[in-house]
Parts: sequence; C-alpha cells; structure tokens
Amino acid sequence: MCPDLTRRGMIGALLAAGAARTAHAAPLAPRATGDLALVIERADTSALIIDTTRRETVARVTGLGDLSHATAVFSRDARFAYVFGRDGGLSKVDLLAGEVVNRIVQGGNSIGGAISDDGAVIAVGNYSPGGVRLFDAGSLAPLGEIPATWAGGRSKVVGVVSAPGRRFVFSLYDGDAIWVADGADPRAPEITRYDGIGRLPYDGNITSDGRHYLAGLFGEDGVALLDLWDLEAGPRRILDGYGKGAEKLPVYKMPHLEGWGRAGGLLLLPAVGRHEVLFVDAASWTPAGAVAVRGQPVFIVVRPDGRQAWVNYAFPDNGWVDVIDLRSRRLVKTLEPGKAVLHMEFSPRGEQMWVSARDSNMLVAYDSRSFAVLAEVPARSPSGIFMAARAHAMGR
Amino acid sequence: MCPDLTRRGMIGALLAAGAARTAHAAPLAPRATGDLALVIERADTSALIIDTTRRETVARVTGLGDLSHATAVFSRDARFAYVFGRDGGLSKVDLLAGEVVNRIVQGGNSIGGAISDDGAVIAVGNYSPGGVRLFDAGSLAPLGEIPATWAGGRSKVVGVVSAPGRRFVFSLYDGDAIWVADGADPRAPEITRYDGIGRLPYDGNITSDGRHYLAGLFGEDGVALLDLWDLEAGPRRILDGYGKGAEKLPVYKMPHLEGWGRAGGLLLLPAVGRHEVLFVDAASWTPAGAVAVRGQPVFIVVRPDGRQAWVNYAFPDNGWVDVIDLRSRRLVKTLEPGKAVLHMEFSPRGEQMWVSARDSNMLVAYDSRSFAVLAEVPARSPSGIFMAARAHAMGR
Repeated sequence: MCPDLTRRGMIGALLAAGAARTAHAAPLAPRATGDLALVIERADTSALIIDTTRRETVARVTGLGDLSHATAVFSRDARFAYVFGRDGGLSKVDLLAGEVVNRIVQGGNSIGGAISDDGAVIAVGNYSPGGVRLFDAGSLAPLGEIPATWAGGRSKVVGVVSAPGRRFVFSLYDGDAIWVADGADPRAPEITRYDGIGRLPYDGNITSDGRHYLAGLFGEDGVALLDLWDLEAGPRRILDGYGKGAEKLPVYKMPHLEGWGRAGGLLLLPAVGRHEVLFVDAASWTPAGAVAVRGQPVFIVVRPDGRQAWVNYAFPDNGWVDVIDLRSRRLVKTLEPGKAVLHMEFSPRGEQMWVSARDSNMLVAYDSRSFAVLAEVPARSPSGIFMAARAHAMGR
Repeated sequence: MCPDLTRRGMIGALLAAGAARTAHAAPLAPRATGDLALVIERADTSALIIDTTRRETVARVTGLGDLSHATAVFSRDARFAYVFGRDGGLSKVDLLAGEVVNRIVQGGNSIGGAISDDGAVIAVGNYSPGGVRLFDAGSLAPLGEIPATWAGGRSKVVGVVSAPGRRFVFSLYDGDAIWVADGADPRAPEITRYDGIGRLPYDGNITSDGRHYLAGLFGEDGVALLDLWDLEAGPRRILDGYGKGAEKLPVYKMPHLEGWGRAGGLLLLPAVGRHEVLFVDAASWTPAGAVAVRGQPVFIVVRPDGRQAWVNYAFPDNGWVDVIDLRSRRLVKTLEPGKAVLHMEFSPRGEQMWVSARDSNMLVAYDSRSFAVLAEVPARSPSGIFMAARAHAMGR
C-alpha cells in the first residue's frame, strides 16, 4: 500500500517501472473508425481490430501486457482505444495505425477505468496500490491522484465510471464507500464521499443516461444506489434480497455490473448463484419479475432497440447463449457459438451481435434478427469486445 | 406525377438529369471522424465540416445543390455523410476528403431520407414525383422504388425514418397513410400499408429505440402512433388535442417532429401555435404537463443525460434559446446566440451544445453545464447541424 510515498513520488516510480512509448511509424489506414471493434486476446497480450462492416480483421495490436481482466474506452473522435490491463498497464492504441502509440504501467493491479465526457481525462482505478489516478488523454501524462484512503490505508478501487460534467464515480472495496470526483481541475479533483454504503462494494456501474450509479455489495445482500441528480440525498439501499437466492447455488463467477442490461424502464441483472435473469423497475428500483434460464448468467446484453436480451453463462454452461424476447419475456433462441463464451457486444444499431468464444479461438458475428451466422473470425483466446462507437456512450 | 413512366425509366431519366460524380482526388485527412459535425450552409449550396474537439472548421464542402431544407445521415463507419437536398439531390460527402464524392439528383423535390440500420441502403422520400426511392449506400446506384400510390396518384412522402431490421417507415401526405417497407430485398421491398390514419400527415419521426413511429397530422388535431413491435395492431390516435391550443396563435412554422425530444419516459413536444413545451408520458402516450416559454418552440433538444432541454423559437423570438431543467421543469437559463437561431445539436455525450445562428453567420458552441461560450465559428447562413455520431443512432 506504500503509504510512505507521496502522490507525485509514487507516480514517478510507477512511470519509471513501466514502459513508455510515444513514437509510432506505422502508416495510417485511409479510413474511418466508426465500424471498428477492439477485441482483447487475453492470453497473448494482444488485441484485434475488427472491421464489422467487412467482418474481417484489420490488424493485430501487440504489446498490451496482462489482459486477463482488460477493458477499453475510446477517445471522443473514436480514433484511440485506451486499454486497461490487469497489470496496471494503460495502453493507448491508434485504431488507424493498428498499434500501441503510448503505454504506461500506472499501477500494480487494476481492473478498469473510464474517460471523461469531454475526452480530456482518463481515470484508472487500482487494486494495488489502491486509489484512482488521472491522466491526460492525449499524452498519458499524470494529472492527479485520489488515494482513496480509509481507516485501513488505501482502498482497492472498483467500478470506475464517467459521469456527466467531467466527473468520475467509483467504489472503495475496502472502504465500503462510493466517491464522486469532479475533475474540472484534474490536478486537484474535488471529492464527494459517501461512506458506510454497505460492506465490500465489488463493482459499480452507471445507467446509460449517466444518472444512477449502482454498486454491488460482496459482503452483504443488496445494492447501493446513488442518484447523481441528488448528491445531497446520498446513496440508498435497493434490492435487499439481491445476492441471496432461495436455494443457494455455488457462485462460479461473481457477476460484474457490466453484466447488467437496460431496456427502457427496466434493468436486467443476473441473479447471484441462481439460474435467473432478474428484472428491476428502474423508476422505483423494485423487483419486477424474473426469467428462468439454463445457468448462472454472466452478461445480459440488451439489443439497442430494447427488444432482446442475450445471455451467456458461467461454467459449466459457458458454451450456450440464450436470447430472451423482452416483450413476451420468453427464451426465443439458443445458440452455441463455441467453447467458453466470454463476452458479447451488439453493433451500435443492433443489427449485428458479436460473440467471443475463448476456447474455440473464434469470434462469431450473428444477424440479430435471423440469428444467421454472418461471419466467424479467428482470434486467440478472445475475451472482451469493444465497439469504437462506445466513444459516444456516456459512462464509459 | 409522371404516371406514364416505368419505375426504371423514371430513375434513369432523373439520373441523366442530375450530375453524377464518382471520382475524387482530394487527399484524405489522417484522422478519425467521431468528433466531426456537418453543418449546412443553406444559402450557399455548401456545408462545413467542423471538428468539435478543436472547435474549428476542417473543410467547406461545395456543390450540394439547394439546401433550403436539408438533412443528413451517416454511413455506419461514420466516414460519409449523405445529404438530402430540397432539389431532390442526394450527395455523398467524404468527411475525410472534405468533398462530395458522388451526387445524384434522384427526384424533383425532397425533404429527407434515412439509412438502413446495416448501412447498406439509403431511402429518400420525395414530394415530386412522390414516393420513396432506395439506393445503394456505396455507389448510390438505384435499387428499388416505392411509388406510394393512392387514389390520387403518387403521394408526397414525408417523415422517412430507418427502423430496425433494414426497414423504413414513412408517411403519405396526400395518401393519409403510414407505410412500412422491409428492405431485405431492396429491389422488391415488401410493404405493409396503414391507410386512413388521419388527414395529411405532414411529418413523422421514430423514438430513439426504433420502436414507435409518430406522424403529425396537418388536417386535424392529434398524432398517429404505430408500435413497430405490434404491426398487426396498426396505428392508433394519440394526443387528440394536439394542434388545437386554447387560444390559437398564428402558426409561423409548423413544428417538425424532429423538433420533439425524449428524456427517459417523457416525450417533449412543441405546442402548435402556443407558447408551451408539452410533456407526454411515453408509456401511456397521454399528456403529462407543460412548461410555458417565451415563444412558439421549434426544436426541443434534450441533453443526452435527460437533464436539460434546449428550446429555440419561431419568428419573432428566434434570437433566443432557453434551457429547461427537466427535474424541476423550470427555465434555468436564457441565451442569445445570435440572429435567427435555426438548429441545435449536442455532442453525443452532451458536454457541448452547438447552435446555428443563420443571420449572424455564426455557430456558437456552449459548455452545456456552465453555459460558457466555448467557441464562435463563422459559417454562411448556417442551418442544420449533424454530428457524425448520428451514424450510430437508430432511426436516422
């Protein structure tokens, strides 16, 4: 936890320890990026750039470090992807050059970050040494640091999201807290702290309108909810039974809140340790039914028109993907994209769905209406799929 | 209405009459397009390409024909803008080259069109000769035609939108109808017709989830609503009083349905001939209150987080823009961007708002939180502002 290092000293030490590259020579592809996706190859420190119009690989980007739990956000022009690696690496990938143009190792252990709504600031949440670091999105130069200190020292930080007004919201796993950082001056971010929100928030996410932040609690049942339109009211507890389950099943994988979907006024979330997709009314934040499924859901991805949800599962059901029709709330299709389905992402208008099957070393693109396979694209142990159009979505 | 021409013959004649350009030589900018906007210069047959990050003009695109009522949609890679001109022109603009790379005059008088969700097909609705024409988004080659014939001949077509599943929805002004065209085979589109929906639908629009199509009725009060998830039920009438007004004021400008905003479960629409913004519950489609404003609203643009609506007005109040806070439903800010404010568009994450002031020959970019002026960018009689991120939004 290195409490004896100053903020600036720690950043300097970490920067020196990491690789920093700024030069690049690769020619730029004469194209736009709006139909590209970045796909993490988790075992190979690499990522593929996929053209979702031609449905083929454009480039393989190497040198991304440990990608065993990697996420990506995009610059506001959708040209650059920022990849957050498990090893604390923050890599800036030029989608036009097909290579890493800058990379720092900004912490010892990280599971994600976000970019401010204006595209100027990157925030990374760290497990080790804990806290949040802010970087210039252009140069990756360090701007500021939020140590996220609680009684026990620096807290592991999870669930970093971007909120309107150059703000970042995140959860302190050890600190049992949700903090909101206003990055108007990223060298001296203003913090609003909500402590005692419940034990061990393990992940957080923000609704697609950037208004409501939800933190799942590992240490107890329930979810903490913060309405960013009403910071004075502070977080409240919702879904008190969430996490319980009538018959407890072994939890093979703690569902991440990125696994939650939203369809109009409904939130869809995986039941913990149960074979169910739960519905929550996003106005009253109360339960609104459930659909039984074949396994423990991991990701529930809602088609942009809100008509379908695609669900994948934890082991041993991770070769299946089911499609729920959200009007009838019935399963309407079962697919077998390959072995160990890890992630799914719709194209921004929803006409295509891309699925990664890690142990089949394959990406499968589906027509989301006919369920026809549009393409199979080889990839090495693919995991996360990130469409460049995320550049324009709030929260990321 | 040229009823004696065959479909193919008419398209050929129109193609021959129009200019067709396919070659281009301009070098491509080594950049991405996600932060670009196209701004119509209505008096000059030109458009500006604006970089909303640097907040400066990148290029002026010329040769776009009559732009007195122009709209634009974008290719799925966000590289190309398709500009629909009043003169029936369909121009394909390469945002990277900064020029028109293809242009046809596909009809005699048109006010807009849409691109299919998969980016393959462009649909244009025509006043003259009436009907809808379908084009290949790559080459602009004609694919198919929907004459939109009613008892009186070919109908003027308005309110062409894109719906999920390569479908287009549009209204027949003369034909009192809403038609849904399935473009799976664009050479032989399958049509579902709803006749007798009410007199003279003057415009139509689709909700941002691509589910509900609304057509305003010029010949009577009320709005026709079609739920695309329930095509068998067909359209129904909502908002029976819409258009009436307790004290009728002269209607200086018929509000277009593009002027409607959506914030969560609320629709915001301009009262016709009254100084009010109306709220409609988008679940029950019933009135849900109103806010008095200074003039007759034209566009009501909701910030992507749903917190604010920005309103501009018809003459003589067209120098003002008011901001309504949607939580309190109060006016919180009044701005004077310049003379004859014609259009407003938020950046996709909502942190910036761009406003066109035609008679001041100026674009004004605001910080949507502080209301500070971020930039003033000269433009010649600017009207419509179209962010390239529209590429990823349904309905366009």
